Formats: sequence, structure tokens, C-alpha cells
Amino acid sequence: MFESAELGHKLDKKTYAKEAAALRADLLDMQYDVKMASRFSVVVLINGVEGAGKGETANLLNAWMDPRHIETHAFPAPSDEELERPPMWRFWRAMPPRGKIGIFVGNWYTDPIVARVSGRIKNAALTVAIDDILRFEKMLTDEGVLVLKFWFHLSKKAQEKRLKSLEKDPKTRWRVTKRDWKLFEDYDHYVDVSEHVLRETSTGAAPWTVVDGTDENYRTISVTRHLLDTVRARLKQKEDKRKKASIAPFERSLDGRDLINTLDLKQALSKKKYETELEKLEARLNLLARDPRFKSQSLIAVFEGNDAAGKGGSIRRITGSLDARWYDIVPVAAPTEEERAHTYLWRFWRNLPRHGRINIFDRSWYGRVLVERVEGFCSEADWMRAYSEINDFENQLHRNGTIVVKFWLAISAEEQLKRFKEREKTRFKRFKITPEDWRNRDKWDAYEMAVCDMVDRTSTEIAPWTLVEANDKYFARIKVMKTLCDRLEAGLK
Amino acid sequence: MFESAELGHKLDKKTYAKEAAALRADLLDMQYDVKMASRFSVVVLINGVEGAGKGETANLLNAWMDPRHIETHAFPAPSDEELERPPMWRFWRAMPPRGKIGIFVGNWYTDPIVARVSGRIKNAALTVAIDDILRFEKMLTDEGVLVLKFWFHLSKKAQEKRLKSLEKDPKTRWRVTKRDWKLFEDYDHYVDVSEHVLRETSTGAAPWTVVDGTDENYRTISVTRHLLDTVRARLKQKEDKRKKASIAPFERSLDGRDLINTLDLKQALSKKKYETELEKLEARLNLLARDPRFKSQSLIAVFEGNDAAGKGGSIRRITGSLDARWYDIVPVAAPTEEERAHTYLWRFWRNLPRHGRINIFDRSWYGRVLVERVEGFCSEADWMRAYSEINDFENQLHRNGTIVVKFWLAISAEEQLKRFKEREKTRFKRFKITPEDWRNRDKWDAYEMAVCDMVDRTSTEIAPWTLVEANDKYFARIKVMKTLCDRLEAGLK
Repeated sequence: MFESAELGHKLDKKTYAKEAAALRADLLDMQYDVKMASRFSVVVLINGVEGAGKGETANLLNAWMDPRHIETHAFPAPSDEELERPPMWRFWRAMPPRGKIGIFVGNWYTDPIVARVSGRIKNAALTVAIDDILRFEKMLTDEGVLVLKFWFHLSKKAQEKRLKSLEKDPKTRWRVTKRDWKLFEDYDHYVDVSEHVLRETSTGAAPWTVVDGTDENYRTISVTRHLLDTVRARLKQKEDKRKKASIAPFERSLDGRDLINTLDLKQALSKKKYETELEKLEARLNLLARDPRFKSQSLIAVFEGNDAAGKGGSIRRITGSLDARWYDIVPVAAPTEEERAHTYLWRFWRNLPRHGRINIFDRSWYGRVLVERVEGFCSEADWMRAYSEINDFENQLHRNGTIVVKFWLAISAEEQLKRFKEREKTRFKRFKITPEDWRNRDKWDAYEMAVCDMVDRTSTEIAPWTLVEANDKYFARIKVMKTLCDRLEAGLK
Repeated sequence: MFESAELGHKLDKKTYAKEAAALRADLLDMQYDVKMASRFSVVVLINGVEGAGKGETANLLNAWMDPRHIETHAFPAPSDEELERPPMWRFWRAMPPRGKIGIFVGNWYTDPIVARVSGRIKNAALTVAIDDILRFEKMLTDEGVLVLKFWFHLSKKAQEKRLKSLEKDPKTRWRVTKRDWKLFEDYDHYVDVSEHVLRETSTGAAPWTVVDGTDENYRTISVTRHLLDTVRARLKQKEDKRKKASIAPFERSLDGRDLINTLDLKQALSKKKYETELEKLEARLNLLARDPRFKSQSLIAVFEGNDAAGKGGSIRRITGSLDARWYDIVPVAAPTEEERAHTYLWRFWRNLPRHGRINIFDRSWYGRVLVERVEGFCSEADWMRAYSEINDFENQLHRNGTIVVKFWLAISAEEQLKRFKEREKTRFKRFKITPEDWRNRDKWDAYEMAVCDMVDRTSTEIAPWTLVEANDKYFARIKVMKTLCDRLEAGLK
């Protein structure tokens, strides 16, 4: 993989000067086209061996283009706020919005490679890490992010020479650290592991570009030209004419039975029984939330359900037993301008709880496979891939010690009609009912099938769905509280 | 101040039940009016002695209203990301957007009071803290935030009784900590200091409401009724018809001389001299940015100036000598949806650098007293108060060890015209020139006077303005670089 990069490519000064002048103008032009179009963001990953020009290239890109529309990130030791979220959180928060270029010097490749070289992880864990990266980058490119990956290579001999010459010059001495020499000792191992990772992660949508770092002129021109050409090609691409979803993908089972229509919605609880149970569960939940083990974990409760199924009421029963300082409720409505400028899951990533805290999502990332699917707000390809993206997301939460509890609150069409009519009559509930709610009823069957699909595809052992029979509010609330307590208790480590 | 709150107010169960039922419905109604109007946010501060029902009230407000539109915050030990910014940063990031209610259990009053009681600070420092709070809250209320401040009081005897009874009940025992008993010992001192603080901070726009915490029923009804009445009164207020600024406030000095028109714009440097100087300054800046002392400080450079005065070019000379991983450039254009939902300075607070980092603002918080003033985008009252709000802001940065360097790049009208024409001809500079730029030229005099006002009112010893004669780019860039180096060097502690 690094053979060509060890040929010792060079570019003479004159050719360089000529190329550079033209490229700089073109890059600025391109950058403003990206900004004006604001159709996609550009993520530039910079990796490679030490001394091969990683930092210099980041600086150069900032110097040649307008640095006001470039965000350059390095990722030194994570802050405590970062340590309390899944490892990818720090990268999510650094993602550039559409129209901008983000340069990541050090990124999601750094830790797996370094960990493998140092022996901190074995091959199996590396394979898992590679899988995670592949799925993450696929998500990025599927969402329209242009991902460019540069690997800066140096032969062992060239690296030694480079480090020594950097050390000699008082101006650049600070760039060479003890860690760099330690890494140099591991050169062969480092290159082996890297080659493996590069091979496994060079995909059609986000291939690696290996750069010969020996000659600065050659390196500079090859990187900038590749960046320019790739972005230009992308700018020329016509916008995806996103196809509207049809109802076609919904297929009833042969006998017409599904997860939802086989629920026994008649289940009910007496008021007295409800009150006794609720009090017990409230005490239990309060106790669990104060469990010392929970201080290094967190809890996410997701509420989805038919309109008027009682999500708000169930949430209030949960919060009723918690101290208001322990939780946040995240109502999920239309995304804001900033959220729309990022990939779909960004707005959920930005709302992850810190350790010891509980975030309750009133509607959630499942919007894409529910309302967006049924209403045709996204293409079939989009909602189809959302299932696995969501599973990845929840898996990352799980590995981070976050307990994810998901509820679908189901009511019958008749019960919903009754509630809608009640709402229209009650002063402080009127706001809860909109013309859209009435329209959604026309698509009852489509929603039902979308829900069944969703449950089939995203109910995992780490984050299972709980279907809640919600025609009777008492029954529903107790089932929610009990499930939440059970899952929280089981999830404490 | 606490006399009435020690009378031992009570409310019988029956009256309470009746009042509570009506209030709950009204509160929900009110909350949705706030949400629908989205004209202002509500900030509820909860302070007082331990055991007087602070936490209970936060919980109750969440229980009686829709918790999905309430954000409840407590402020335990700050995270490292918080410690690297001014102390108020954690409150800024918790501020609710318009249409929402934020409950702050513990807030900007907590630390000054506790610090004074514990003897960590003296009266003089407390006076400074009170001044800071007064100005901060004035800014909030001037910006339309509705600030409600509740002080929960208990007599010494009642507090002792309360703490003991909480301790007795296994369900509430966890609420009483050793710290609470320690605070109890300091009761008299605590109440003295608090009374002083309350008296000094009870302003017309944000008065304190002292709540007798003894009887839960009485406490609950009085807090919720006050909240309801205050918000309702605010909802009834007609929206401020903001008056357009007139040109009237601009007054030429008698002799027509001002800070800008007395600048010697002829100053220039030869290319050779420029290159020699620049190289030296680049090395110096790079060295300063790597000074070990800088690891616990940060730098903010602010660029304002006439259109086409060369802000971008000056910024690129700075970044040219820095590693791209050390700085962020914050281009300030139209605020986003989320930014518009907050007070004016919020979008700058959210972009403060961490320790060891440099943020460069390409345009800044001075927009309010420049373009917004001249174009009449805000009222005279708004931009007049902005001067002191900005000084407060920069003072907080200064106290946090952030070095603030501010540049006004001045060119003559003739030079600007020349540059505009050049820009229209150059392919990759065309984007830089808009019809608005041409329009702004018509208001040259108004802008000039606004700049002079701004400098007079916001050039402080901790954050002075540097006026840069920028007709000659070389001269301007060297002056910027030199000033930046000098200020950074002088600011390192």
C-alpha cells in the first residue's frame, strides 16, 4: 500500500511555483463554491507517520484557502465532558456544517491504530473498531458529507532524517516530542497495523489517498490537487433527486397479524391499584437514580407512540419521582437551522446526557423511520439505512454505559378519536391537537406497519423496544415505570 | 427583609386543594402562551436556606407544568471545560431560549454568598460580585428576559426542625448532607450576608420574592401564584415598538477632528521591510503561543474595520505563524435561529476559547454599536447599553486570564473604492463584494462617528482598541502583528 509513496517523488521549485499559484486561486474559488452551494460539508482526515507533514499540511490548507471557513481540529486528551459520552462524541461535536471544511488532524483512526501498536488492544478489538469506522463513514457519505482521507507516509529512513532535521532547527524543535521517538522505534509495527487499517477502510465512497511526505513541494501539490479535483467533481454532481417513498414497501403478513394489532389493548388497572403500584415504583426509581453505580452511567428513555397515546403523561410520572436537577427532557420537533446543516443524528448526539443523568426524548431519532418514511420526507434508501445507523448509535451508547429504554405507546384508532375530541374541549389541552394530527389518522395502517418494521429492525438485546398497551392510561404508566425500573436495575454495573 | 417570612404563614388543606387545582390549569395555559408567543424566556432563580423547599419547588413546577418546556439546572462542581472559561459561562450555556422556562436551582448568587459566609472573600469582593450580578441581570431584563428571583426562607428554629424531620424519614434522608448541618451552624451569618445581598440586588426589573418555607401548602401557592401573575402581566404587555435610531446622536466635534479622520493613512512600508519584519513577528508570535504560561490563559483577537480594509489578510498573517490546531476563526455574520432565540451576547459566549487557545473574531459583538446602530436595526437604548454590557463581558474575559486584543482597520473612502473595483475584477474575490458594501459607502460619515463613539466608550486599559492605518496593507499587517505580540507578551502571567 505504501510502495508508491516510497519512490521518493519530487517536484522542482519552478514547477512547484507555477502549480502552486494556479492551485491557490482555484482552491479559493472552490471553497466559495462550496460555501455558496452549502449542499455538503467537506471532512478532511489527516493521518500518517510522524514527520511526514501532517501539521504542515493542515497549516498550508488554512494558508492557501480562507481560514474563516475552515475548522481545524486536533484531539488531545479528552475533557471530562467528553469522557462521559461515547468516544465518538468529540468528533460529532467537531463536525462542520454544510458549506464548511473541517480538517481533522488526528481523528477516529488515531486511537485504534495507536492502541493496537502499543498492544493495548488485540486484533479482534481492532477489527471491531474498523467495523465501527466503516459504518460511521458510510453514514457520513450517505448523508452527503464529502470525506477525504489523507495518509502521510515516510519510509523509516526518511522519517529518522526528518525528525533529526526538525530537532536541529530551533524553530521547529518543539514539534518533535519524546513520544515521536518512541513511535519511531515502533515504526515497522506502526506501518503494518496502519496498512491493515487502510486496506480495510479504503471504501469506494471514502478511499484513502497515500501521500509521499518526503518532498514538501510534491506533497503539497499532490494533496491540494486531489482536494481540488475531488471537491470540484462533487460540486458538478447534480443534486440527488430524492425519490419520494411509496407505500409499496409496506407488506401485510399473510394472516394480517402484526406486532401492533395483536396487542391486547383492553388491559387496564383500577385507580386504586394504579396508585399503590405507582407509589412503589416511584420510590424504586428514585432509589435507583441515586444508586452510586449510576454516577458513572447514564439513562436515556425514548418515547414514541400514536398521537395522544399519553407520552407526556408517562413522562410526567417518571419525572414526578425524580429530582428536577437530574433529568432533561428533549422534545423533538422540527430541527433548527444549525441542526439541518448537519447529518441526521447530529441533533441527538448533541443532547446526550452526562454521567449520573437522565435524558428523556419525547419523540426521537426514530422519526426518520416513522413520520419521515410514511410521509415521504426522505427516500427509501435514507430510511432503510437509518435502521442500522440507529443500531450503531445505540450500541455506542450501550458500550458507554448508557442504558437505553425505548417505548412505543399504542392506542386504538377509536381511543385516539375519543381523546382528540376531548382535547378539543379542554382549555389547556387544545394546543395539543393540530390539523396534522387529524391528517395522520388517514395513514393509520401505514404508520402501523412502519412501527412493526421499526421494532423488528431495531429491537436489540441492548436496547429492546417495549410496546405499551396504552388505551388505559393507568395500565400504560405502570408498565412504563416498571420497565424503566427493571431496565435501569439490570443495566447498573 | 425576612420578617414577614418568619410569621409562620399557613394554608389549610381545603383552601390549598381548591387553589392548587385552579393554579395548575392556569399555569399550563400560561406556559403554552409563553411558548406560542416565543417573545421572551423566563428565568426562575431559586435560592434560600437549606430545607426551605428549594428542590421541592423546582420539582413541583416541573410536575404542575409541562416539563418538556422547562429546563431545570443545578450547578455542581464545574467541569474542566467550564473552569477554562469565565465563571458566568456555565450560566450562559444554560440560558433558555425564547418561549422556554429555565429554573436555576443554585445560580450566580450561590457562590458569592457561600464564599462570603465561609470567609473566602471579604466585603469588598462581595460588593464587586453584587455589582457584576446587577449588571448581568440588567442586561437580561433589558434584552427581554423575564427574571424571577425566589428566596426561600426559614427561621433558625424551623430549619433545624426541617432538617431533623428530613433525616428521620428514610425516603428523604439522602437530601440532608453534612454540608447542610455545617451551613446550619453558620445560619446567622448566612442570613446576614444573604439579607445584604438581597437588599442590594432587589431591582425594579428583577426584584426578590421572599417565600416563607415553613408550610408547604402556603409556600407552593405563593410561589406558583407569583409566577403566574408575573408571567401573565408580561404576556399582556404590548411588544416594545422599537424605535429606529436616528442619525441625531451623531455629533461632529467643533473642529471636525475625530479619532478616525486624524489618522495618518499615508503610513506605508516597503515590501522588503515588510517581509523582514513579518518573519520576525511570525517567529515571535509562534513562540509566545507556545509559552508555558499561555497553557492556562487564552487569547481573543477582534477584527473590525471598513469593508475591504484587509481584515481577512491580517487574520491570515496571524494564522500563518500559528499551528492550525491552536486557533479558531469565528466569522460573525447573521445570527442563526438558535442564536436569535437568545440574548445578544449569547452567540459570542458560546464561542469562547478554552485554555491555551486562540479565537479570532472576524467582526464581533461590536456589530451592535456599528452596523446595528447606523442602520437602525436596534433602538438607541439597545446600542447605548451595549457599551457597558460589552465592557462587562470583556472584563470577565480579562479576569479569566483571556487576553483581548481589538483592531479597527481604517482605510480612506478613496482607497475603499479602488479596492471594491479591484475585487469586482478578480475572479476569486468577487464573492467579497456585495450590493450592501456599496450601500454602506453612502453612510461613511455615520459609520465613522459610530466608530469614534465605540472607541471612546470601549477602549479600556484591559482591552484597548488599536486603530490601524490600513491604506497600506504592509503597514497595517505589521502593526497588527506587532500589537498582538506586545499585548500577548504583556498579558502572560
